[in-house]
Amino acid sequence: MVLKDRKLILISNDDGIDARGLQSLIEMVKPFGDIYVVAPEQGQSGMSHSISLLEPLRTKEIQSSENIEIVSVKGTPVDCVKLALNQLLPRKPDLMVSGINHGSNSAISVIYSGTMGAAIESSLYGIPSIGFSVLDHKKTADFSIAVKYGRKVVEDVIKNGLPNQVSLNVNFPVVSEADFKGFKICKQTTGVWKEEFDKRTDPYGGNYYWLTGDFHNFEPENDESDEWALKNNYASIVPIKIDFTEYKTIIELKKRYI
Amino acid sequence: MVLKDRKLILISNDDGIDARGLQSLIEMVKPFGDIYVVAPEQGQSGMSHSISLLEPLRTKEIQSSENIEIVSVKGTPVDCVKLALNQLLPRKPDLMVSGINHGSNSAISVIYSGTMGAAIESSLYGIPSIGFSVLDHKKTADFSIAVKYGRKVVEDVIKNGLPNQVSLNVNFPVVSEADFKGFKICKQTTGVWKEEFDKRTDPYGGNYYWLTGDFHNFEPENDESDEWALKNNYASIVPIKIDFTEYKTIIELKKRYI
Repeated sequence: MVLKDRKLILISNDDGIDARGLQSLIEMVKPFGDIYVVAPEQGQSGMSHSISLLEPLRTKEIQSSENIEIVSVKGTPVDCVKLALNQLLPRKPDLMVSGINHGSNSAISVIYSGTMGAAIESSLYGIPSIGFSVLDHKKTADFSIAVKYGRKVVEDVIKNGLPNQVSLNVNFPVVSEADFKGFKICKQTTGVWKEEFDKRTDPYGGNYYWLTGDFHNFEPENDESDEWALKNNYASIVPIKIDFTEYKTIIELKKRYI
Repeated sequence: MVLKDRKLILISNDDGIDARGLQSLIEMVKPFGDIYVVAPEQGQSGMSHSISLLEPLRTKEIQSSENIEIVSVKGTPVDCVKLALNQLLPRKPDLMVSGINHGSNSAISVIYSGTMGAAIESSLYGIPSIGFSVLDHKKTADFSIAVKYGRKVVEDVIKNGLPNQVSLNVNFPVVSEADFKGFKICKQTTGVWKEEFDKRTDPYGGNYYWLTGDFHNFEPENDESDEWALKNNYASIVPIKIDFTEYKTIIELKKRYI
């Protein structure tokens, strides 16, 4: 990589270095600067904010040229970001983008998502960071609307920045361009995944369980929520900051612990 | 398990089914009801809120008696909770406790923690849930203060409950009982882990990296923060709710996306 007076953009994802969504994300942000991809060697869906404490990280150089470096890491999405920022990148990046994820990361799914894990981790270091997802798990998912309109989000973040430690969770509906209604700024929808495990027996009599489930929306009518936006053909943008504290409950608990 | 008119308590952890902290947690909550342990077969430190989407879950019955069942799961802490609530337990538990973790889960560490991943997951299903940690990574960590005083937290939660989808992140300092100052209700400290990767070369010339680092506290003087409490010999209790939305930024962004 020859560093010029250009933006440096870090890219990661959770579907792994070979995912089509990653190629689409490179295409999306290429006009804005030099690119450094540090992404997991293999698919890491559902890896959330996990980090490798019991195994060391190994890297593999995939591509090295003037405007783009691509390195794969045997590790999680958050490992990739930590290693990129601490070891691999020539300097602190101006922007970090994650994805494009094959599948939704709206509502509570944000907490299970490796794509958002990577974006959130990057934001903790004061880097404007955006996670992109398309509501289509299939390998053949169409990323064209995400690439075209995602560019507007990138443009806005480069121009106006984001508050310190804030990232964006951007999800695109599966919809034709004619029906696409543009962006809606949203809150994370309240709800929960209800699991139904698929219990099976292996040829040797052992039981095993596949995780399956449906999202239960606790506020389906709330037009400020990301689920509502997506159901109504908007792309949702949820600004995110990590403070797990429930401040209201602090007041109650203080009365009980004197 | 013979279900009587007693409380049913779900236990999980991230240090794995053989961890001493798990035995201490059983000891802590035994007086309050019947116990169902569903914990990872192996250590899962740093696994955060991750779930197994690419591998099915397998279970192993470790112990089955009148007042206690122990099952190990080849999976993550959150997998354990999902499987427990959906498949294994005879009914919805009255309480969930996670830990006792060998090492701190204060401040931003809460997002990397498998112990807190399990407690938070359980809270999403409306179950009062508490994660316990002791600030000592060593296998020989002394859990006696956590067992004795953690019981008071359990008692309070059984008696007074917790708001829906709220869990508690309880951390104990390493301190003698004479110096222990009791509990302090806190907020999550703002800060970030600064990594320093330990780069090594294997006997075959390949590079690998071990993750190491230090926590940088952005508000060391804030006596409402969990780091301050722990440094001053208090056990910290942070009430937790999962809404990643940064509401202040919604207002700003709405002006930019019209």
